[in-house]
Parts: sequence; C-alpha cells; structure tokens
Amino acid sequence: MQLTDAELDRMDAWWRAANYLAVGQIYLMANPLLREPLRPEHVKPRLLGHWGTSPGLNFCYVHLNRAIRTRDLDMIYIMGPGHGGPAAVANAWLEGTYSEVYPHVSQDAGGMARLFRQFSFPGGVPSHVAPETPGSIHEGGELGYSLAHAYGAAFDNPDLVVACVVGDGEAETGPLATSWHSTKFVDPVHDGAVLPILHLNGYKIANPAVLARVPEDELLSLFEGYGYAPVIVSGDDPAKAHRDMAAALDDALDEIARIQRAAREPGAAGTAGDAGGRPRWPMIVLRTPKGWTGPKEVDGVPVEGTWRAHQVPLSGVREKPRHLAQLEEWLRSYRPDELFDRGGRPVAALREIAPVQERRMSANPHANGGLLLRPLELPDPRTHAVPVDKHGTATAEATRVLGEYLRDVVAANPSDFRIMGPDETASNRLGAVFEVTDRVFAGERRGTDEHQAASGRVMEVLSEHLCQGWLEGYLLTGRHGLFNTYEAFTHIVDAMFNQHAKWLKVSRHLPWRRPVASLNYLLSSHVWRQDHNGFTHQDPGFLDVVLNKKAEITRVYLPPDANTLLSVADHCLRSRDYVNVIVAGKQPAPVWLPMDEAARHCERGIGIWEWASTDGGADPDVVLACAGDVPTLETLAAVDLLRQYFPALRIRVVNVVDLMRLQPAGEHPHGLTDAEYDALFTTDRPVIFAFHGYPYLIHRLAYRRAGHHHLHVRGYKEEGTTTTPFDMVMLNDLDRFHLVMDVIDRVPSLGGRVGHVRQRMADQRLRARAHTREHGEDAPEVRDWRWPY
Amino acid sequence: MQLTDAELDRMDAWWRAANYLAVGQIYLMANPLLREPLRPEHVKPRLLGHWGTSPGLNFCYVHLNRAIRTRDLDMIYIMGPGHGGPAAVANAWLEGTYSEVYPHVSQDAGGMARLFRQFSFPGGVPSHVAPETPGSIHEGGELGYSLAHAYGAAFDNPDLVVACVVGDGEAETGPLATSWHSTKFVDPVHDGAVLPILHLNGYKIANPAVLARVPEDELLSLFEGYGYAPVIVSGDDPAKAHRDMAAALDDALDEIARIQRAAREPGAAGTAGDAGGRPRWPMIVLRTPKGWTGPKEVDGVPVEGTWRAHQVPLSGVREKPRHLAQLEEWLRSYRPDELFDRGGRPVAALREIAPVQERRMSANPHANGGLLLRPLELPDPRTHAVPVDKHGTATAEATRVLGEYLRDVVAANPSDFRIMGPDETASNRLGAVFEVTDRVFAGERRGTDEHQAASGRVMEVLSEHLCQGWLEGYLLTGRHGLFNTYEAFTHIVDAMFNQHAKWLKVSRHLPWRRPVASLNYLLSSHVWRQDHNGFTHQDPGFLDVVLNKKAEITRVYLPPDANTLLSVADHCLRSRDYVNVIVAGKQPAPVWLPMDEAARHCERGIGIWEWASTDGGADPDVVLACAGDVPTLETLAAVDLLRQYFPALRIRVVNVVDLMRLQPAGEHPHGLTDAEYDALFTTDRPVIFAFHGYPYLIHRLAYRRAGHHHLHVRGYKEEGTTTTPFDMVMLNDLDRFHLVMDVIDRVPSLGGRVGHVRQRMADQRLRARAHTREHGEDAPEVRDWRWPY
Repeated sequence: MQLTDAELDRMDAWWRAANYLAVGQIYLMANPLLREPLRPEHVKPRLLGHWGTSPGLNFCYVHLNRAIRTRDLDMIYIMGPGHGGPAAVANAWLEGTYSEVYPHVSQDAGGMARLFRQFSFPGGVPSHVAPETPGSIHEGGELGYSLAHAYGAAFDNPDLVVACVVGDGEAETGPLATSWHSTKFVDPVHDGAVLPILHLNGYKIANPAVLARVPEDELLSLFEGYGYAPVIVSGDDPAKAHRDMAAALDDALDEIARIQRAAREPGAAGTAGDAGGRPRWPMIVLRTPKGWTGPKEVDGVPVEGTWRAHQVPLSGVREKPRHLAQLEEWLRSYRPDELFDRGGRPVAALREIAPVQERRMSANPHANGGLLLRPLELPDPRTHAVPVDKHGTATAEATRVLGEYLRDVVAANPSDFRIMGPDETASNRLGAVFEVTDRVFAGERRGTDEHQAASGRVMEVLSEHLCQGWLEGYLLTGRHGLFNTYEAFTHIVDAMFNQHAKWLKVSRHLPWRRPVASLNYLLSSHVWRQDHNGFTHQDPGFLDVVLNKKAEITRVYLPPDANTLLSVADHCLRSRDYVNVIVAGKQPAPVWLPMDEAARHCERGIGIWEWASTDGGADPDVVLACAGDVPTLETLAAVDLLRQYFPALRIRVVNVVDLMRLQPAGEHPHGLTDAEYDALFTTDRPVIFAFHGYPYLIHRLAYRRAGHHHLHVRGYKEEGTTTTPFDMVMLNDLDRFHLVMDVIDRVPSLGGRVGHVRQRMADQRLRARAHTREHGEDAPEVRDWRWPY
Repeated sequence: MQLTDAELDRMDAWWRAANYLAVGQIYLMANPLLREPLRPEHVKPRLLGHWGTSPGLNFCYVHLNRAIRTRDLDMIYIMGPGHGGPAAVANAWLEGTYSEVYPHVSQDAGGMARLFRQFSFPGGVPSHVAPETPGSIHEGGELGYSLAHAYGAAFDNPDLVVACVVGDGEAETGPLATSWHSTKFVDPVHDGAVLPILHLNGYKIANPAVLARVPEDELLSLFEGYGYAPVIVSGDDPAKAHRDMAAALDDALDEIARIQRAAREPGAAGTAGDAGGRPRWPMIVLRTPKGWTGPKEVDGVPVEGTWRAHQVPLSGVREKPRHLAQLEEWLRSYRPDELFDRGGRPVAALREIAPVQERRMSANPHANGGLLLRPLELPDPRTHAVPVDKHGTATAEATRVLGEYLRDVVAANPSDFRIMGPDETASNRLGAVFEVTDRVFAGERRGTDEHQAASGRVMEVLSEHLCQGWLEGYLLTGRHGLFNTYEAFTHIVDAMFNQHAKWLKVSRHLPWRRPVASLNYLLSSHVWRQDHNGFTHQDPGFLDVVLNKKAEITRVYLPPDANTLLSVADHCLRSRDYVNVIVAGKQPAPVWLPMDEAARHCERGIGIWEWASTDGGADPDVVLACAGDVPTLETLAAVDLLRQYFPALRIRVVNVVDLMRLQPAGEHPHGLTDAEYDALFTTDRPVIFAFHGYPYLIHRLAYRRAGHHHLHVRGYKEEGTTTTPFDMVMLNDLDRFHLVMDVIDRVPSLGGRVGHVRQRMADQRLRARAHTREHGEDAPEVRDWRWPY
C-alpha cells in the first residue's frame, strides 16, 4: 500500500509538530508558538534533556500511528531511548491524551506553554519517558531492558503488537544483546507480537555506536542469526524515508499477521520460512541521523548526525545571540503556523490522522496495566498444608510444598500468571507445576526434553535479566507472576529491581495509574545450602539492596518452614504495587507450625513461639530471635541444649517472618511500635538474633530500639565453600553450639556450670568439624536433630 | 598438519586420564586406581559436583596442549563452565603443576587419593575452577563473564592467546551475549588474541540450551554477524572428533597468526576478509554430548547427551549395588591401568605430551598475574594540585583535575594501564587523557569521530558488564586500571563486584597467588547531580553492596574536593588486592584544602576541620560530620549560618574521606579505636552527619560506638527527579537550612533565639523552593555561596 502524497504530507506535518514540541520542551519557558520574535527570557536558564534521539522516536510514532489506523491495531510503543522523553510527551499531547490526564496542560497555547515549561523543570516532569508519561511502561533511564519489557508485554496478549525502538547505544548492553533471543519463547498462537525497530543514529554521548559501524551484510547476518527477518530503512531525506518506512512497516505487519494466521488456523503446523518450526519474525533497522532536522552545524562544527546532537545542541542560548537566532531558525523550520491554530491547538489535519480513544498508543490500557488487572484465582493454602501434630515434628521441603500450591495457581489462572526462572524451577523443587503446564520453548524440541512446549506457564532461560525484564513487562501490562531464582544471583538484577521499585514509587502517587500486581521474588537455593557450588553461590545481600528502596514498596519475608511459606506466598500473590522478596529453602527441614498457627504467625509477621520458650510469657532471662529457615533450626536446637544444661533459664523464642516488622513504625508501614517491639524483645535482656543474611541488616533495622544495645546478631559473615550444611553454619558462628556460647557470654545469672558447659559446646564444635572432615558428611547428632518437646 | 594415529592415541589417552580423574574426584574417597573391586565405602557419602561439562573441557584441554607444543604458544585457558572444576584440577595434576603448588597432592597413588578425596569435601577444595586452581583467572560460578575476562587478559599482551570455552548455558546470559562484540575493541598489533570455543553440549540443568537448538545456518549467521569466522566441530565419535578438532584448531591458530602478522608487518593496512578494516577472528563451535563418555543410561532413562548428565549421573551409589557396578564399569572404561603406572603416576606417554614449565596452561604466569605485575609510574599528585590560599576559596571540577593527573599516568604507563567506562570519560570530565591517548575502536572510523583509534588506553562501550569484565581480566593478568562510571548504574555490576571480591578474598590466603592491582571504581555523575536525567540515575547504594564483602578487601573513599581526590586516586593506584571505590563529583565546587593538608587529611582518612570549627579543639556543643562533596558543601554552609545566628555555639566539623574509619577497629583494618572515635565525635554530644549515600549505612558502621545514640544522619532517602542541585538536597532534607534545624532540634543550650531562627530556616527553604520553581534555577544566594571565613 503506497503512501499517497497527501498522506505523506500529513504524516510529515505530524512529525514536524512533534519535533517542534520536543525542541520547545527542551528550550522554551515562554512564547511557545513563536508569535513574537524569540528573546533570551523566553529560553530556560538551564537547558536540559536529550534532543538526539527525539526526532527518530517521533518518526516511528507517526508511522506506527498510520499503521494503527489503517489496520485497527492494538499497539503499544516502548521507547528504549527513554531519555527522549520530549518525544513521548509531544505525541501524547498531540493525541489529546496528555490533556485528558493532566487537564491543566490543555491542548491550546496556554497548555503548550505549560507543557514546555514543566519539562525537566523543578516541580515539573522528568526528562525521560517516565511513569508520569501516558502510554509508557518503560522509562529507559538505565538502558538495556526495552526489548525484554516488550516481550513481557506481548506474552498472553495474542492481539497486541508491541513496537519497540532499540537505541544503538542500548543495543551494546548485555541484557539487550540477549533479549533478541526472546523469539525462541514466543508462541504465535497465544502470544502477541513484538516489532523491534533498531534505531541506528550512529552515536552515543561521545562515541560511535558499535552496531552503527558494522558493514551492512554483517548487520543483516547478525539479526538473521538471532532468528529475525531484518529490513533496513536508511536515509536523511524525509520524504524518501517516510515512503521507505511506511513500506517496511506494512511488510513487517503483514508478515506478523501472516505468521499469526498460519499458526492459529486449525491444523496449523508451522509456517514457510520457519527455523525449526519457529517463525522468522520481522524487524526493522532504521538508520537516520542523530538529531535529525536539528542544527547542522554550531559554531563551525558539525552537530546533526554526530554525537554532539545527543543532549542540547545549542548551549548558552540566553547569552549568545547567535545561538538564540539559530534556535529560532530551527524552531521556525518546522513551520509551526501550519501545525497549530491561533489558539495553539493542533490543526484539524493533524488531529484527524491520530488514532482514536484506546487505539492511541498514549491511551492504550495495556500501558496502564492496572486497568486490565484481574485478581488471581487462588487456592486455599490450607489445602496444601503439611499436617503438624506437634510443633516441629513433621518434615518437608518447603519449596516442594509450595510447588503444589503453585500448580493449583497455574491451573486456575491459565492465561495471566507466569513463573520465570533461570533453569531452576525443578531444581528449586517447584516441579509439581509441570503436572499442569510446561516450559515455554519455541525452538526445536527433542525426545530427551521434559515438559517443553510452545506454550506454557513456566519460562526458563539462563538470564536473570530476561526473567526479570519479561516479568516486569508482563506485570506492567496487568498480569501476575513469580520470579524464582538463586538467592546469590539475584544481585545480577539489583539494578533492574532498583528501577522497578523507582517506577512503582512514582506510579503510586499518580492516581490515574492503576495498581499492578506485585513483583514477587522467591529466592531459593540460598546461602546456607550450596552443597554443589560453594562460595560464589553464597550471598544473601539482595535483601540489603531491597531495603534501600522506599518502605512503601518493599516487603521481605523469611518463612521458617513449609506452612509459613504457603501463607506468605498466598499473601504476596494477592498484593499490589509491592516488591515482595521471599527467601525459602528447598531442603528437607522441620515444619514448626500447624497451618492455622502458621497463618496467624504470618499475619503478625513476628511473634513469640511460646511452645519453644521457657519464660512462661513474661520476664525472660534471654531472648533467642531468629529469621530464616536455617537460623530457626539452629536457634531451636540451641534452645534444646539450653533447656538441657540450664533448666531454670527463662528463654524466650521470637521468630521473624516479616523483616520489616523490626523497623520503627514511623519508618515502614509494617514497623512495630516501640511498645510492641519492647514487649517482644524486652529493653534490657540480651537478645541473640540468628539471621539468614548479613548481620548488619538487623542492626540497621533495629538501631533505634531501646534494647538495641543488648542485641547481638549472628548471620552470614562471608565465609563459605563447598562443604556440609552444618559446617556452613559453623564457619559463620551461627551454629547451635555457638548460639549457646553466645547466651552463656551474655547472661550473667547462669550459675556455676557455665564454664563447664561453654567448654562442652566448644568441644562439640570441634568434634562436629572433625567428623565432617573425616567422613565428608555431618555427624548424625546434628544432622538428625529434631525438636524433642 | 594431519593428526597421526600415534598422536591421536596419546591425546585420547590424556583425555581418558583427565576424564578418569574427573569422575574419581566426584565419586571416590579411596581405592583411587581401582586396584581392588569398588566397594561402597570407597565412595563419598555426599556426591557433589558437575560431570556434564567436564569431558568437553578435558577434550579442549588436550587439543590446546597439542597446539601449545607444536607452536610453542603462550596460552591460557578460561573455562566458562567453571563448575567443571574436576576438569581443571585433573589437567593441572596431570601436568604436574598441581603437585608443585600443593606438594601433599603428589603425582602418585597417595596424591591421587588426596586429589579425589579433597574435591568438594569439607576442608578440601571447592567444586569450581576457583582461585585455588592453578592456571585459572576465572571461577565461572556466576555465569556470563568468561569471554569478557578472556579479552581483558588479551589486551596489551600481543603474544598471548587466550582460549575461552563458552558454555551454551552461559551463552544465554546478557553479559556473554554482548561480549562477542569485544572483537571491535581488539587491536591486532598491540593486543593478543582470544580464541572462543562455544561448547554446545545441548543442555543446562533441566532445559535445552537455546543456541544448541537453532539451525546450523542460523548459528553460523549469528557468529558471522558478530564478526567472527566460525567453524563447527561436531560429533560423538572420539576418534573423528579428535581429528576434526585438531584440524579446526590448526586452522584457527593459523588464521590468528596470519591476522597478527598482516597487521604487524611494516606498512600493514588491514587484511583480506576484513570487515571495515577489522579482522574476522576465528572461533570454534564444538558440539559434543553432555556428559560424553559417561553412563549412556541409568535406571532405564538416557543420561549421556541429556540434562540428566549435568551434575552426578549416578546417585545413591553407596546404597544401590547396580549403580556401584555401573560406576566401576564407567571408571574402568577409561582403562586406568594404561594411564597410570604402578605408583599411580601418569605414564611416560602422557607426561611427554604435556607442555613444559610455564608453557603449561596450569602454570602460565599470566594466570597468576601478580607474578608479572609492575608498579605503575605515578606522577606526584601535588603537581596537579589546585592552589588554595584560604580554605574553600578556590573552585574546581574535581574529576577534571583528576583527568590531568590520569593523563600523566597514561603517558607514563603506555602498555599496562587502561581506563574503562560506558561512554563517560569525557562527560565525567576526564577528557585531559585524550591529550595523550585515544579511545580504542577497531570498527569503521569516520571524520566526525573524536579520539578514536585502533589502539589507546581508554575503552568505552555502553555495557558496564563489559567494562568490568575486561578490567577484571586485565587486572588478574597483572596490569592496572580504573573503571569510571555513573554511580547509580554501578549496581548493574553488583554481582560481578561480589564475585571479584570473593575471588580476592580467597586469593589473599593462597601464598602462591601473588597480589594483583586493586580494582578501582570512580563513581562520578553521582546521585546529587543528575540534572539531565533524574530519579533513575539517583542511587548511591553500591556502597552498601560493597560493605557486605570482607573488610580486608573493600575500601570506600569520599574525597570532599579536587585535592583530596588526587590524593585518594594516587593511593588507590598504588594499592594491591583491594576493591577501591571512589565517589567524586564533576561539577564546579569549592576546593577546601590546600594540597598538603589534603594529603594529610586523606592519610588519616577522617579528621576535624579546625579551620571550620568553633570549639577551639575541645568540648563542642555539637559535631557536624560530613562525607561526600555535596554533603560537605551543605555542612559548611550550615556552619556559616550557625556562626551567624549562634556565635557562641561551639561547633566541631568532622570530615570523613575513608568511610571505613567509622567501623570499629576490630571489624576493619582502617577502623578507628573507640578512643579515637570518641575523641572525634564525643560520646555525649549530638552529631549531625551529612552523608552522600543512604543514611542507614552510617548507622550500620557506627552502631557500636558509645555516642551512637546521639548520631543523627541525613542522606539520600530515595527522593528525586530532574531538578536543580539545591532542590535535590532539599528533597532529601540534606540542605544547609535543614541541617541548621537539626542542630536546633538537638542542642538544648542554644538560648532564646531558637524559635525565631528555626522559623527563618524553614522560610528560607520555602523561598528557595519557590525561587527554583519560578525561575528554573537555584537562587543565587544558595548557588553562589562560598565559605566566607
């Protein structure tokens, strides 16, 4: 379908309008329509923002709009170079969405003045495609995740097309470089399509972009190797580029439609041109100048098409008359009088070519996923509970029990819940889910595979970046999920977690953004049980990263057993707009609490375990606190020893499930008041706290409490290797014997047997180590210990 | 050069020996040579480790050894699938290196017994290719970095060939996916070569590997697109695979030699087959079965060639006689009697085909880089000092001053110092280095580029993973460097930092591993000055991650001005085996200290600034502490206000450069004793601490101090956007006015004017905000404030 001249003119007018609005946002604080000659005081004192990528983003926008109208497409737009915020805002304003969401930024001269002034201005809007920007699910401040977000949005949205511009800078990042492989995980029947547009504008801030400098045959080869059918659109002549882009886009969207039709028709079995049954999805490589249509030269050096166009091509505009004149000339080159009427409203010819209502990419509900969110159908966790007649007498692998619960979640929610993980679902013992679903794999499948299928609820790829990026895209478009992963390697996505938490923090304060499902992490294969792998796999520090983000966003749970894990998971899957981190082991371990008690304990988040305590509910000599499954085990084993050696000692056992309870109530919504905290921990008795992670974290949470001076924390102190489970806790002084020694050292009233018992504990540690080193396994007396009361 | 039958036999024997030793390590704790029938008690009680990748690693090893001998190559071997530790250890033992480094693991039957027993055994060695493994610079526990390490090792080592096996699991990670592009940064004249061997054994723990399931044309296309000339070697018949691999390796090494010769000969200008002047480096794709030569089936299900071969193919060997028999059969299939003599020593035919001395990959000094380390020639930082007549009166951009110092470092060390960064060297104002060097770019260069050349000391790529990975490889092979990057995005490499810190922690305790240069981070474009980018770019939390690692490894510096930055940088570049983190701004800011004072202040790491204090050296009413450039500025501005309003107030100003000084002496080698700490901070006076990062970090460091109860910390509390510098500190209550209010709220003895002054401060905050929101820039009275005394 050839572009008619009239169409081309209207599209070019839109493009000029969007470019004008982008430049206006960066430079102007008054005189938005240039109704008078430009004067220094019309120009912002601080010139901030990124021009270089904006014309390319605008170019794509108007072409995608044409396609939406001609094909009635359901499409969203992910702008990888999200620092081109002016472009996203400009198009949303032209489409009318911006003024609907922010009525004071109306579609008239006054609104345009506010639109310009607010950009990157104190009290205004950020310079990036941020949560504040209608139509966005992707900020792009930290580059690398656009394509993963795009695929996440497309999964289980069979009628959605996600257009995704990938900048040539971002394309150098690792996460982006592997995101191209996402096609191996797209099911053309049940998923929507992603249309990647790799935008080669040649330069980053100061350097050429790598992919902009490889020969064309190599570039095509790369993307064919990634499994795409790439088409190159290249040029700096707008009219020719418009025609080429329109044709390329038509071809790509035809091909997407063909692939989906072929896959979805009854009896379909792959399509022509497939790679092992996998479609070759189209993609576009768009090569246009950086800062296209901006100043060609400034002060005698080239700007358009170079790295100098990255941010603000003309600097010191208030002070340099020549730059001021050049800015005015640049702005007028878009012929604003043809684009906006007297009142400052976009002229009818522009308004008419925009898609309408929810077809506008700036107003598409998929980009405000909370609008589409449906609560999960959740099974009653009690139906999966491990029966516990007496505290601590049952044994279970916590994540295996959770797996059965998740199996029922999957079965009840076949199209809006996914489990992501780097090849760990089975090894983390969630394998029951495979009774009702498969792992998604759109590549070649073989007889030796297990539970691989073109569609399924489990997505496994050895890239934490992809798992996280896909899940973020999936959640932000209104669905649910869980990311199960190795505890230590969650650090791989620290930066992605940060960005998602920042997105949620801002979103929560925008009433028009509806709440989305929480991002749920299940950290298993944790620090204390790395029998196969050792020191590199031992790092519980993700919790420290999480706690730096806003309290209103973050939740950390350390369920001590299978039943509490069920209760916590059920809670997390119902929550909205949080990041929930659950740490849980996969090894056989005691189940301490019957299900009803477990649910009550999790609801409180922290509590005294009276059944393990000996203080009769009042006036303990010592508090033994614990958080995490392994620390809880060692703590109760220590209590057992203490009860044997010091029968008169008044011990209180406090278990913490919800770590945020330790913070002051003023710091976190889950925080205990001082009175509540003191009632649990006392203000003057020694507290020996056995913690799953780095011990400082507990101090950081509790340093304001009255009893903090008496708080002594044991945790992981960065000692480890491939060794036995008990040797691991010994290496870090978290073992039961050491906890008893800690009590002895801190409780003055233990009486005469102290030295004798302390020596005995030290001897037992030595014996435990000697046994381990001789036999290669833990001594039965520690390995097989069970709570005997 | 065809492989003769005799050669093939000897190589196959080596391979069988290495495979035998790998299986022995995983399974056996006695009867290493199978001189008696295998009994349950010969088998380890806990079967741990990874068999699946080991035969492939061994296969490559023996082929690389042949090439080393026939070509007298200087070669090291990076094993991406580093969980195949048994393979690395097996070959080092066969080569004799293992017994040289660890004499108790001798090359005889007793040594072999110890070799087997120690593997993944309490008190023994880890299961991975760890620091303990001779010949390794890469652990590979956390996958993704092998190829970046390999290129880092090759830079500036023109005669070195780095063979790098990339596993098909690791190949799915983002960092690895972008590492292939490293060829665009290799200078064939001054750098060595990397020979990647992509090992497709088909499966990860449970899933097929993506690259193992793409059609062969697509696979070739992908690597041609990455810029390589790939050759595929494929098969499961050892004899044929040996011949094919030998031929492929010969071709690849011939091609490397040809590329280097062509580039290095006088008047060279590229070589045939180049892509834009860039050579097409060879690579090998090796496709062999996972767990090759292991059990084909176990309990009726296929194992060899499937995911079931990943870890321990035969489980429960002590308990299941059939598995025990199958293990014995498997071990005997390698015909150990032909491989080891009566004493357990490798037979002469094996010993003779190993390279000798430092040509052995297990003994190559490049893999123990400290052996080759040369101290840097460092300029005197005083020659770059900013002259300061009176404290705080000079102004400088700290990183610009550092840039001039680094220029001289570069000039004086033209072949063993590199600066890495994601396109930020100029924007971080280190641009003076370009007076003496260029950015490395081996792709096409154009006239609009600046400071791009085939060789240079600066490496910029928009991938923090590549920057960090390259630098790690460069440092571990005995060179020096600096990674300058955006503070917020250092989180992208949190996990890589963790792994490097873990590597150093273990290495420091291995006397045979010589100290290497520290990994130096320069975090600029920090949280407080993100004028162009806003909230996504505001995150000072990398420091929290760093502090979780061992105190003996980590150092954090927050120089308050240009002169202290010079002094700190000089110190860091001289240090060994640390990770040094330097946080420094790039904006114009006061220079507080003359150079001599700066040097003394940095040497102490913390100190009272008497010239700013009013307590006459004793008995302050309040301590104003600060760490970081912006907090120091706000603190001194607050001191100025306090001196105006409360002339009698006895103020002490403490500035912290070396954050570790705050920790107790028992916790960190730099930690102050309690007496020292109390002498600075007092035990009973309020301390208002203005901190660069998240405030909890200071509490975490100082919670044990006597005066902690009086410590009140201001820092970044996750509030921000694109706004003015002063608005940023106001958003986080770190501004001078708020610090004065904090003093007023905490010093009881201020007298009658308190309410009045407090109100005035609150008013000034409101006025500052109003000014900013109206004018888009900070009010001159805050922006232009200078220390007036």
